[in-house]
Amino acid sequence: MTTHMQAEVQEIPAATARFLGANASAAADAGAALRARDPGVLVTVARGSSDHAASYLKYAVELVAGVPVASVGPSVASVYGRALKLDGAACLGISQSGQSPDIVAMMESAGRAGALTLALTNVAGAPLARAAGHALALSAGEEKSVAATKTFVNSVVAGLLLLAEWQQDTALREAVLALPGAFEEALSCDWAPLADRLVRAQSLYVLGRGPGFAIASEVALKCKETSGLHAEAYSAAEVLHGPAAIVQDRFPVLALGVDDAALPGVIQTAERLAAQGADVFLTARGAGGGVRALPHVAALHPIVAPLVLVVSFYAFIEALARRRGFDPDKPPYLNKVTETL
Amino acid sequence: MTTHMQAEVQEIPAATARFLGANASAAADAGAALRARDPGVLVTVARGSSDHAASYLKYAVELVAGVPVASVGPSVASVYGRALKLDGAACLGISQSGQSPDIVAMMESAGRAGALTLALTNVAGAPLARAAGHALALSAGEEKSVAATKTFVNSVVAGLLLLAEWQQDTALREAVLALPGAFEEALSCDWAPLADRLVRAQSLYVLGRGPGFAIASEVALKCKETSGLHAEAYSAAEVLHGPAAIVQDRFPVLALGVDDAALPGVIQTAERLAAQGADVFLTARGAGGGVRALPHVAALHPIVAPLVLVVSFYAFIEALARRRGFDPDKPPYLNKVTETL
Repeated sequence: MTTHMQAEVQEIPAATARFLGANASAAADAGAALRARDPGVLVTVARGSSDHAASYLKYAVELVAGVPVASVGPSVASVYGRALKLDGAACLGISQSGQSPDIVAMMESAGRAGALTLALTNVAGAPLARAAGHALALSAGEEKSVAATKTFVNSVVAGLLLLAEWQQDTALREAVLALPGAFEEALSCDWAPLADRLVRAQSLYVLGRGPGFAIASEVALKCKETSGLHAEAYSAAEVLHGPAAIVQDRFPVLALGVDDAALPGVIQTAERLAAQGADVFLTARGAGGGVRALPHVAALHPIVAPLVLVVSFYAFIEALARRRGFDPDKPPYLNKVTETL
Repeated sequence: MTTHMQAEVQEIPAATARFLGANASAAADAGAALRARDPGVLVTVARGSSDHAASYLKYAVELVAGVPVASVGPSVASVYGRALKLDGAACLGISQSGQSPDIVAMMESAGRAGALTLALTNVAGAPLARAAGHALALSAGEEKSVAATKTFVNSVVAGLLLLAEWQQDTALREAVLALPGAFEEALSCDWAPLADRLVRAQSLYVLGRGPGFAIASEVALKCKETSGLHAEAYSAAEVLHGPAAIVQDRFPVLALGVDDAALPGVIQTAERLAAQGADVFLTARGAGGGVRALPHVAALHPIVAPLVLVVSFYAFIEALARRRGFDPDKPPYLNKVTETL
């Protein structure tokens, strides 16, 4: 039997192609508005998986545009009633449904404060899109699974396209336009050795760095949500500061390395944890000391490479959830839209 | 036998009084410089516990000053070699030793980019302090335990004093000056019921909101570091979006509520998790449904209240570590200064 999640993961290449086909001019307009504003800071507002997309874009924007990015809790406006000083800023809201009242309130507050406002929503014309000066529709189609997959991917794709237009970065734009093909290839990367290790595991560390850290956070959330696995994301640079204390005795670790400037550090961390006795899996080649390499798509632009990894992971975790006795479409205690209390 | 950690936790009220006595004029000067700059964004640079202090200050600065705060990974400069656009910004570096080369590099990069630079270090005159335009010495005295306690507390105290001076916020300044007394009271809050529950636990969720979320992150790190407990911090607003899937069957949850605008939401989340079967402990009164209240210091300024909780927690976790068979002074595999790879 095919689950909704399985069908939606397989649909990712087509969903991304659909988004790219529909949003070329809207992205160019929003990019031009960002160029004209030249913001001193980009503020992001999002929750859950959408906040992981925002975190991915934080690293991408800082590395490509050199503009600092602040993730602001919607509660600053909705709970604490505080307006931020945002007259030289841009504000990006990300929400699949575009309906969460606290995120809409934060976006409206940012607009009143003078920020350039942009929204990414899957539901076109949602309240969040209407509250923003520029809106891109994610065009991922209906997502029936509680676990967001194709909408997460298209959120990041949308943000990267916006960034490429803003910075007029031709290499990044070409890498984004080539993503549907890379995602097809990612779906055929088989992470079976990791599944065999995790079928009875209780805990997992997921490591990444730069945009790969945002993917590590998304991976850890999906492990909990679909498979009851207490996975936690760490920056590969932070894990040796304290969290490594519980890594021993075959503790499983998934290190999300990609071929970028941070890879040597990620490899060293992976090797050190393996030397402590951990079972370490790495999505790159080049590590020794018993670290096992997982298949991955090679020769990608470093800013898009971590996003391609998540597509392989989604196919993997859907299957792992079923092996662990969960229905990935129906995580316990969760609903698709969570009202924030 | 007294451990170093135990002695250092007991010393917190005196260490904070020492900091406050030594830094009144340096904090006033730095606050005046922030007022003159009127930054559009505050960028923070830190790792480990110091990054939790930065996260605390993020919420405090956003709520009190209305200025967005971006935590920037030191790797942006040190690994990826990217200079950020920071001419209208302020940059705050926090490091106990003040020696981490990547944090010093990021601070130097921020200074070259035109940011107003400020440093908080425990070691006076450390490289990070020398790289900054303004520096406050944390004056916590030598910290022998690998687990940072009094230096963490003084980092937050220093940042809050800076904020009070910057904003000329008399109520906040008075609350900061009263902290040594509040910390004394916090040391006598006994969390024994939580210790009884955690003595054999493997996992724990720690929930907080606003500045309390930063304390939740610090609590979770210390649980791992000293006691081999896989604790993870969540925003009380986020936990129902997915992580709640693994909360059932007496899963332990520590909810760090304080008497502020977010408390009703924290209480509702605590009650909902308790209804799922979790063992929920809350550092506030007012919850029903089997949620157990832990003793806490009452009637505090909402911006300092979460910091007072961490002092009760430190005394608690040092004792729990010993009950779980760990030496809190010597976590496995950790060193005091971690070189980031």
